[in-house]
Amino acid sequence: MESTRNPTISFLSDFGTKDEFVGVVKSVIHSLAPNSKLIDITHEIKAHDIRSGGLTLARSAQYLDRGIILAIVDPGVGGSRKEVAIEVNGGDYVLVGPDNGLLPPAVAMLGESTRAVELTNSKFHLPSLSSTFAGRDIFAPVAAHLTLGIPLDELGDLIPVHSLQPGILPVGGVNGEIVSAEVLWEDRFGNLQLNLAPEDIQELGETFMLRFGEMSRRVTMAKTFEEIPSSEVGLIVDSCGLLSISMYGRSAAEELKLHEGQQVELTPAEDNHRNIVPVTLRTER
Amino acid sequence: MESTRNPTISFLSDFGTKDEFVGVVKSVIHSLAPNSKLIDITHEIKAHDIRSGGLTLARSAQYLDRGIILAIVDPGVGGSRKEVAIEVNGGDYVLVGPDNGLLPPAVAMLGESTRAVELTNSKFHLPSLSSTFAGRDIFAPVAAHLTLGIPLDELGDLIPVHSLQPGILPVGGVNGEIVSAEVLWEDRFGNLQLNLAPEDIQELGETFMLRFGEMSRRVTMAKTFEEIPSSEVGLIVDSCGLLSISMYGRSAAEELKLHEGQQVELTPAEDNHRNIVPVTLRTER
Amino acid sequence: MESTRNPTISFLSDFGTKDEFVGVVKSVIHSLAPNSKLIDITHEIKAHDIRSGGLTLARSAQYLDRGIILAIVDPGVGGSRKEVAIEVNGGDYVLVGPDNGLLPPAVAMLGESTRAVELTNSKFHLPSLSSTFAGRDIFAPVAAHLTLGIPLDELGDLIPVHSLQPGILPVGGVNGEIVSAEVLWEDRFGNLQLNLAPEDIQELGETFMLRFGEMSRRVTMAKTFEEIPSSEVGLIVDSCGLLSISMYGRSAAEELKLHEGQQVELTPAEDNHRNIVPVTLRTER
Repeated sequence: MESTRNPTISFLSDFGTKDEFVGVVKSVIHSLAPNSKLIDITHEIKAHDIRSGGLTLARSAQYLDRGIILAIVDPGVGGSRKEVAIEVNGGDYVLVGPDNGLLPPAVAMLGESTRAVELTNSKFHLPSLSSTFAGRDIFAPVAAHLTLGIPLDELGDLIPVHSLQPGILPVGGVNGEIVSAEVLWEDRFGNLQLNLAPEDIQELGETFMLRFGEMSRRVTMAKTFEEIPSSEVGLIVDSCGLLSISMYGRSAAEELKLHEGQQVELTPAEDNHRNIVPVTLRTER
Repeated sequence: MESTRNPTISFLSDFGTKDEFVGVVKSVIHSLAPNSKLIDITHEIKAHDIRSGGLTLARSAQYLDRGIILAIVDPGVGGSRKEVAIEVNGGDYVLVGPDNGLLPPAVAMLGESTRAVELTNSKFHLPSLSSTFAGRDIFAPVAAHLTLGIPLDELGDLIPVHSLQPGILPVGGVNGEIVSAEVLWEDRFGNLQLNLAPEDIQELGETFMLRFGEMSRRVTMAKTFEEIPSSEVGLIVDSCGLLSISMYGRSAAEELKLHEGQQVELTPAEDNHRNIVPVTLRTER
Repeated sequence: MESTRNPTISFLSDFGTKDEFVGVVKSVIHSLAPNSKLIDITHEIKAHDIRSGGLTLARSAQYLDRGIILAIVDPGVGGSRKEVAIEVNGGDYVLVGPDNGLLPPAVAMLGESTRAVELTNSKFHLPSLSSTFAGRDIFAPVAAHLTLGIPLDELGDLIPVHSLQPGILPVGGVNGEIVSAEVLWEDRFGNLQLNLAPEDIQELGETFMLRFGEMSRRVTMAKTFEEIPSSEVGLIVDSCGLLSISMYGRSAAEELKLHEGQQVELTPAEDNHRNIVPVTLRTER
């Protein structure tokens, strides 16, 4: 199978683009494997933020071309964590990166990890000046060699798949009418993805009170951004199929001062039930 | 013609690069059309800023390779605006994006729109989890299919070209010796492009008073940045052939606190006329 | 040799990515040379910062694929500085850019400049609307033509290699036990690269006092980031083989408020010598 491997390398990192890190990694790959095709997922993962990198990779995974997935968010570079390659579904994908919990969420989205190897064979690495840039010296040349058809098990020692560091993903919870959730992702537009699927709350109605810290705000389910009334906050099914707190043409994150990693609570709004009789208050005559 | 289409896709959006949006769109395209060539124009258009996106695309247009132009600034995604593809000059270019005024300025730079279609044929879309990411689910697969030679009219219903939303571009004006203009673009270097061509002011001289708000500042025509004296402000013909307010080695935008979208006025400076006799004021003897 | 030239163009600039500059340059290249392969090094060099651009290019150089290196940080665009192409090692690389000191540090890393030409042959340029975007109108088409096999000396007049503007790199110094250095580079992670190699200080021990301005801080040599104790500052051999002031999982630049271009001093810490007898102070009995 390796000899017909798809030459695509999808590449995610926390390298940023202000330095030459990404360009150097690509140059190394391109020098070794001129026919490889590199696709950047993003390089703007917050420095050292393994959780955010893992979530971003998992959200992208099902849309990535078959081939190699190179992912590097690696605060422990050069230290005790392993460098690994993880084969998925017998070879549809091989994920290359540090064994620190970054890769498993994407593996889980793609299927099943069938083999894993620790990248100990220095024949497929660059000679290294330091322990600080495994992306350039280890991960890039390994990814390049994989596209050239080098079999996985030549890259180092096979290790049990269950010995890999797990990724830790926050799970939301519904307890009666109180829904607890966490903001998984704040995107560029200020949409706030929750770790909740629409099914988790569908029996609770269409309108909720959103609470976090001192803040309490009414939110209503909407099918499109446009449907959310101006200056109100909506709850929308986002492009991953999860619920997202959003506004129309504005940043919900800025408006609510709510950000990645924060906990929120949703409860059905009092007037959420259609059979409530509206009461009109009058002054006595 | 479609079967020999140039496989280039030039891609502009307001997706930013901190999230995976751009990478996912490219992955979708690349999976469907492995031989397509993607060129990023920019993805840092201000979120939802259709005007800025349209101007950026128009400035780039004449330099883009023939083929597909994919442009997405789409605050109304999933709502009532249409998704469209616009053919230019019988097929030299096909622009793919939302029908919200984003595409027409570039079309006008490239030539004439010869056909347009609403992208209603879901056979060429991805199955969608939501209404929030047409870039991934509709525009990307449509762009990919176009490079594969799918005829335009298979993508959906032909619509009259004149039914497309127009782009609105601010027009400058010269009224006697008073020139009104708008800052179309503030670039990374702090150059401020005006909606004025050199011809618009050439009969008024070389030196002007620039006025906006409370600010009044002398500006002089210059041929190169280097020609603008240090700490003075120049007026230069920029790379689009329009007039730009610039400084040498510094940001005019920062110095003047003048930014995109602001209105300015230019009038000939008093000493602008060569035949004026200089007057020297003296105290009485 | 030119007819078998590697089609890779490695591209560095200070154009940023918020505007369309990079996309337009790539489009010009791609239109002229559809088989060229573009690799971005970075475009986030600080505007007009020739020194930082030159250092970034030099750090990347040895990892770049053979072929063309296009580098543009050009505050004097359109003015008196020349546009040049510099051949390295008889043709392994050709660097294309302004003659303002940007290119020589990379040339020095790659080998020897064997020929240089001033890009005076407008046959290989685009017709130009202005003097402000040589990247688009001169450097891009020249780079494209080089990948197509156009011989260097057709691009303009050969000029003596020694007539090129030199790059100026700060040199560190060791004076007895006082080591003077400069921060060459602050990377995204807040590592601070010094213009010092490990050999420069190896005889002075493992622990130093780092001084700059009013600040004095203890720093210790470490082999990996992980080895640096939490909230302490380490001195690590970085990916270029130079010494870098670093912290583990945090930004040394932020913690120390120390940045690119600043001068520092290192002296051996007092307890740095193994043969020092520890003294215990006691109150008199």
